[in-house]
Amino acid sequence: MSDRPPTPSRLEHWDRRMEVPLALASFAFLGAYAVHVLARDLQEVWHDVCLSVTLGSWAFFVVDYLVRLRLSGLAPHRFLRAHPLDALVVLLPLLRPLRMVNLYGRVQRRHGPKLSLYGRVMVYSGLSVSLLGFAGSLTVYHHEVDAPGATIVTFGDSVWWTCATLATVGYGDVSPVTPVGRVTAVGLMACGLALLGAVTGSFSSWLIQAFTREDEKRPPGDSPGA
Amino acid sequence: MSDRPPTPSRLEHWDRRMEVPLALASFAFLGAYAVHVLARDLQEVWHDVCLSVTLGSWAFFVVDYLVRLRLSGLAPHRFLRAHPLDALVVLLPLLRPLRMVNLYGRVQRRHGPKLSLYGRVMVYSGLSVSLLGFAGSLTVYHHEVDAPGATIVTFGDSVWWTCATLATVGYGDVSPVTPVGRVTAVGLMACGLALLGAVTGSFSSWLIQAFTREDEKRPPGDSPGA
Amino acid sequence: MSDRPPTPSRLEHWDRRMEVPLALASFAFLGAYAVHVLARDLQEVWHDVCLSVTLGSWAFFVVDYLVRLRLSGLAPHRFLRAHPLDALVVLLPLLRPLRMVNLYGRVQRRHGPKLSLYGRVMVYSGLSVSLLGFAGSLTVYHHEVDAPGATIVTFGDSVWWTCATLATVGYGDVSPVTPVGRVTAVGLMACGLALLGAVTGSFSSWLIQAFTREDEKRPPGDSPGA
Amino acid sequence: MSDRPPTPSRLEHWDRRMEVPLALASFAFLGAYAVHVLARDLQEVWHDVCLSVTLGSWAFFVVDYLVRLRLSGLAPHRFLRAHPLDALVVLLPLLRPLRMVNLYGRVQRRHGPKLSLYGRVMVYSGLSVSLLGFAGSLTVYHHEVDAPGATIVTFGDSVWWTCATLATVGYGDVSPVTPVGRVTAVGLMACGLALLGAVTGSFSSWLIQAFTREDEKRPPGDSPGA
Repeated sequence: MSDRPPTPSRLEHWDRRMEVPLALASFAFLGAYAVHVLARDLQEVWHDVCLSVTLGSWAFFVVDYLVRLRLSGLAPHRFLRAHPLDALVVLLPLLRPLRMVNLYGRVQRRHGPKLSLYGRVMVYSGLSVSLLGFAGSLTVYHHEVDAPGATIVTFGDSVWWTCATLATVGYGDVSPVTPVGRVTAVGLMACGLALLGAVTGSFSSWLIQAFTREDEKRPPGDSPGA
Repeated sequence: MSDRPPTPSRLEHWDRRMEVPLALASFAFLGAYAVHVLARDLQEVWHDVCLSVTLGSWAFFVVDYLVRLRLSGLAPHRFLRAHPLDALVVLLPLLRPLRMVNLYGRVQRRHGPKLSLYGRVMVYSGLSVSLLGFAGSLTVYHHEVDAPGATIVTFGDSVWWTCATLATVGYGDVSPVTPVGRVTAVGLMACGLALLGAVTGSFSSWLIQAFTREDEKRPPGDSPGA
Repeated sequence: MSDRPPTPSRLEHWDRRMEVPLALASFAFLGAYAVHVLARDLQEVWHDVCLSVTLGSWAFFVVDYLVRLRLSGLAPHRFLRAHPLDALVVLLPLLRPLRMVNLYGRVQRRHGPKLSLYGRVMVYSGLSVSLLGFAGSLTVYHHEVDAPGATIVTFGDSVWWTCATLATVGYGDVSPVTPVGRVTAVGLMACGLALLGAVTGSFSSWLIQAFTREDEKRPPGDSPGA
Repeated sequence: MSDRPPTPSRLEHWDRRMEVPLALASFAFLGAYAVHVLARDLQEVWHDVCLSVTLGSWAFFVVDYLVRLRLSGLAPHRFLRAHPLDALVVLLPLLRPLRMVNLYGRVQRRHGPKLSLYGRVMVYSGLSVSLLGFAGSLTVYHHEVDAPGATIVTFGDSVWWTCATLATVGYGDVSPVTPVGRVTAVGLMACGLALLGAVTGSFSSWLIQAFTREDEKRPPGDSPGA
């Protein structure tokens, strides 16, 4: 949100080189955590492997953050201010998959035909919400599944609960009962609703734009109707 | 969302000729499916008739899609990108009634006085939501009615649940319990909320516009108040 | 939503003369209905009085509508298109109190200092929602109170349910179970959410405007920050 | 919402001098009320102390309001119109912490780098909502905890309920049952939803702005994509 442009060249060089490794680490992190949470009757040793992968990716991201901080030449608190999402992702590793969205943006920018402004906002926010929702479902399921009196007892319940929460429908047929589950839920609401608001807002704007353009096309003149 | 204008002439000619048949097929599809789902004590043979009509309309839409793809002269993935709704409608036939909204637009354009921009967005989105909601109610009812522990046991419950879901109120007095019902519900939320957001957003804009215009009318001057 | 300006002079004259009588009739209608619904242990005769007042006001509004249709010189369907709210109010008399909002606007316009554009949208929509909510609470309570298995058993419950519905929170601790109650609920959602969307949208716009203005005040210059 | 600029100089002088004392009084008010509500097994005498602090801060705010009214030289109803939030805060002391948001704004303005317009709207609304939510949780917990049939039985439940309400999710697993709790809930919905609407609206606008700016950066040209 600060307007100061980040210092370029060496930092940009690093960013470009780390793009693919970081994306792979993100996949590894989310995948390993998912296996750890969902495959409950796996052998002990595999759970240890998953945990190692998870923690390894985490360490990798911390190192990346520190290198980028160093290369930027900014004081830590200024760097934090300029890249708030990155810091958040280091603290809350489950938000890390949001980095994958960046990667998607870069891939799409190079290869595909360019989407409209609203289209990109929708795709970006939609992808972020999906990843957030998946990570949130995992966390909530992880903490709820063995809690006494829990209503979220399968991963399907957890995904259903996540969808109903993100849509702000909130049936209440299933809902978290543990403190950790509820804190995760609140975080999910806070992030998810803002992002989904961006999706629906962009969709509205895009729809209105499409109708305006149609107006302008048919009669050759001006007056886009009102 | 892509800005490339679709190639005209032969494709447009086809579109114009198929308008009425496609609309009839949409009605037939939705009607036959509705009878199949709702008339539970109908004779076996009639269910078969309904199913045939449903599948026949589906085939008709697939053929139409392929012809239009051919006439457009575009590669399949480019055609898909230029007409995403049409492809979705071929895959998820219950969204097909959205075509009827197009038809309404064309009828209204020819005969009636022109609605304002926001008015058209509202009418378009509102009609789409109604058809989506009806199709969603049917699907959910179809899959829930015989499920053990279901709370949606009549079609009225299903419609009530759909309305509460689309308004994001989500009382939770009735809610789907089967996997298919829940997946339908999530699809309904995703499509419905974006469309309803367009309705309420346009309504707000229209209201603010109406008040601004009133401001400008009364004193002959400028300053629309702030 | 049509842009055609309504014909003036005689119609306007009638409007101005009927302003106070119509507002009184609105109050009478809503008041009599409220007494009829809420005062359940009233004597039979008083219920008849209330019903007569209710029906009398209704008749009065129908007459007013017909006179205005006549004076406008428009064909019925054009008049309907130009004044959709008025026709709706004749069909669904419980929406009639919305006329009082108009009256408020006229009173406020003459006497008080002018509110800003967003302020007026908020006041107008807020008042409309309050009246709608009150009328909706009455109707739902009326139909739910004696239904078997009802959770809305006091007028307080009904008001609480209305507020939770209009805010789209929808706890589901109380919710209508009768068909009429549910249809009213859906109508309430449809009207209320659009109006409340206008309130929150205007509030956001107003807040952003207030912050922009503050920006412009402090430094003498331009650049309103971004 | 009125556009009349408040009279300056002496009033401004007073405002600047009272800034810190008023903020301290706000903290004292909220803190003392929180201790009074949450520390249920405290000795009687400490509850009396808390109550005194609470009432003392209240009195302090009333005095401040009267002094500012006097200094402004405006008639009471005009002052009320120009500073509606201040009057509300005197009547409903639990909204008083909203003053702290003002203080934050002033601190941030002097020391930190300036946030963008949308950033400030988000921070301001977000802080207001947090304080409102905290005050609301306290009030609801205070009135619900001993009510028969209450589902909100711990402060954690109350905070969880507040978050689900403000996000308009409304699971309904816990919800207020006492009249005072429900009235507080309705107030919380009314204030909170408007403020949160401003947060999500600003976030959308900020996101779209960020994407637009990125568009403008890459190619040197104009056309920000559409």
